[in-house]
Amino acid sequence: MVCRHLDSPVHKAEAIESMEAISVSKSYGGQQGVYTHASAQTGTDMTFSVFVPDHQPGEKLPVVWYLSGLTCSHANVTEKGEYREACARHGLIFVAPDTSPRGDDVPGDPDGTHYFGHAAGFYVDATQSPYAQHYTMRSYIEQELPELVAENFPADMSRQAMMGHSMGGHGALTIGLRNADRFRSLSAFSPIASPMNSPWGRNALTKYLGPEEAAWRAYDACALIADGAAEIDILVDQGTADEAREEQLKPHLLQQACKAANYPAQIRLQDGYDHGYYFVSTFMAEHLAWHAERLK
Amino acid sequence: MVCRHLDSPVHKAEAIESMEAISVSKSYGGQQGVYTHASAQTGTDMTFSVFVPDHQPGEKLPVVWYLSGLTCSHANVTEKGEYREACARHGLIFVAPDTSPRGDDVPGDPDGTHYFGHAAGFYVDATQSPYAQHYTMRSYIEQELPELVAENFPADMSRQAMMGHSMGGHGALTIGLRNADRFRSLSAFSPIASPMNSPWGRNALTKYLGPEEAAWRAYDACALIADGAAEIDILVDQGTADEAREEQLKPHLLQQACKAANYPAQIRLQDGYDHGYYFVSTFMAEHLAWHAERLK
Repeated sequence: MVCRHLDSPVHKAEAIESMEAISVSKSYGGQQGVYTHASAQTGTDMTFSVFVPDHQPGEKLPVVWYLSGLTCSHANVTEKGEYREACARHGLIFVAPDTSPRGDDVPGDPDGTHYFGHAAGFYVDATQSPYAQHYTMRSYIEQELPELVAENFPADMSRQAMMGHSMGGHGALTIGLRNADRFRSLSAFSPIASPMNSPWGRNALTKYLGPEEAAWRAYDACALIADGAAEIDILVDQGTADEAREEQLKPHLLQQACKAANYPAQIRLQDGYDHGYYFVSTFMAEHLAWHAERLK
Repeated sequence: MVCRHLDSPVHKAEAIESMEAISVSKSYGGQQGVYTHASAQTGTDMTFSVFVPDHQPGEKLPVVWYLSGLTCSHANVTEKGEYREACARHGLIFVAPDTSPRGDDVPGDPDGTHYFGHAAGFYVDATQSPYAQHYTMRSYIEQELPELVAENFPADMSRQAMMGHSMGGHGALTIGLRNADRFRSLSAFSPIASPMNSPWGRNALTKYLGPEEAAWRAYDACALIADGAAEIDILVDQGTADEAREEQLKPHLLQQACKAANYPAQIRLQDGYDHGYYFVSTFMAEHLAWHAERLK
């Protein structure tokens, strides 16, 4: 996929210039901000949040990216994720992007579901009309937003980790597996482990990428591992009471793919937890400590 | 104020019978629930949340009450308060009631503000028409909801603490100061320290209680301390960047009232923090540890 806008320095300069703070509040000694910018990549305004812990002048801190799930924006984890205490303690910048482009000009789901379109970008670069124009969350997360973060925050971009939840767990695993040189560690809560084998995933990949399944493999963690992705430390937590586990998430497929490829990964079942933020927040501090160990 | 409905055993039985769970999710090893019941006290359905940590069969746990502020429901602290880790660690049940009766039958603010009416019950028993019929949050929090909690959760009602935020900080301090035998400790984030000296407070007290200020003193922490409230451990945190501090919250009046009455209280200014949950969550664990120490 060609990055259709990033090669234009005019657009890029405009995007960075137009970044503005929606809110910045002190929290756990650091600063929790919400920002918006005109994304050259998606052709829309994009909102994201960044937590920067207290730090020494001139100090650069490692960055943990958090990709959110279906129906979410940056706000869900920012408000409910309970990550700031651990980020302040370990000295981690925490970046939470939105899950799709939005706006009246951005086509949503023609079927009116929550599983495609707005808040359901699936972290792909769409190739199909009418979605290809705006739905470029892959390039937005892989290229544009990291540049914006590097230029505007005290981020040590040589030390990055990525995590996510549900559709964002899929995003974190696939972006991470395709970019093992950028990330030291990946983790996920209840990820869509194999979108090619998930009704939510198949619906989205068909609409964004067309019916040829060969084009889907770059967006499926299990396929990427089967296809020889480089090794990177992976931690996955999946609640046993998650109503989407059997039909949509299928953590056993990730276990099987790792076993078949002799790929190391910690995939844990957490007894009695469901799919929501009461589960995510419970294990957030543990995931961040695990990433921090690898980001030293 | 007569508790107009609680003396009816028929109504009370109905209220308890009708309590139902809206949602229960495992979190930090315990259970975060949201419940609703037909309140005989307010004459409306009332929603509240309860977190119960993991505990031994038959064990009873101390209870921390959290009263929320203007515009809030039970949901704000439940989602953003970051209390579950500390409650699980210390073994505390955490109860978060709503901030007012609600519904089409419940008169709101005739002026259409957020400072009175729905989500702004100010924890009073209203005496003025048309508010007296439903706005009985004092009796709801002091009598009806504790009975419901005691009957439905593993609560040791001999060990209770109360805390709150903003209007709920006012509620926690005033309910606590009037019921020092029930609570071992009180704490507040950015409380409306003296509603009698706050435009938000004066507006609400006038509408709920009428113009006679003598009737307001039972709903003003500073007046209760001046009028000889029994001693109880108090901890207050107030952010210095709180936009409501000077005009509405006035923590210095609480400091003055405590000094004049030789009443012990820790009232702390926290540099750079604003009025929101990024502030509350930062100090939540410290407040809960402080309460836990007193609830042993």
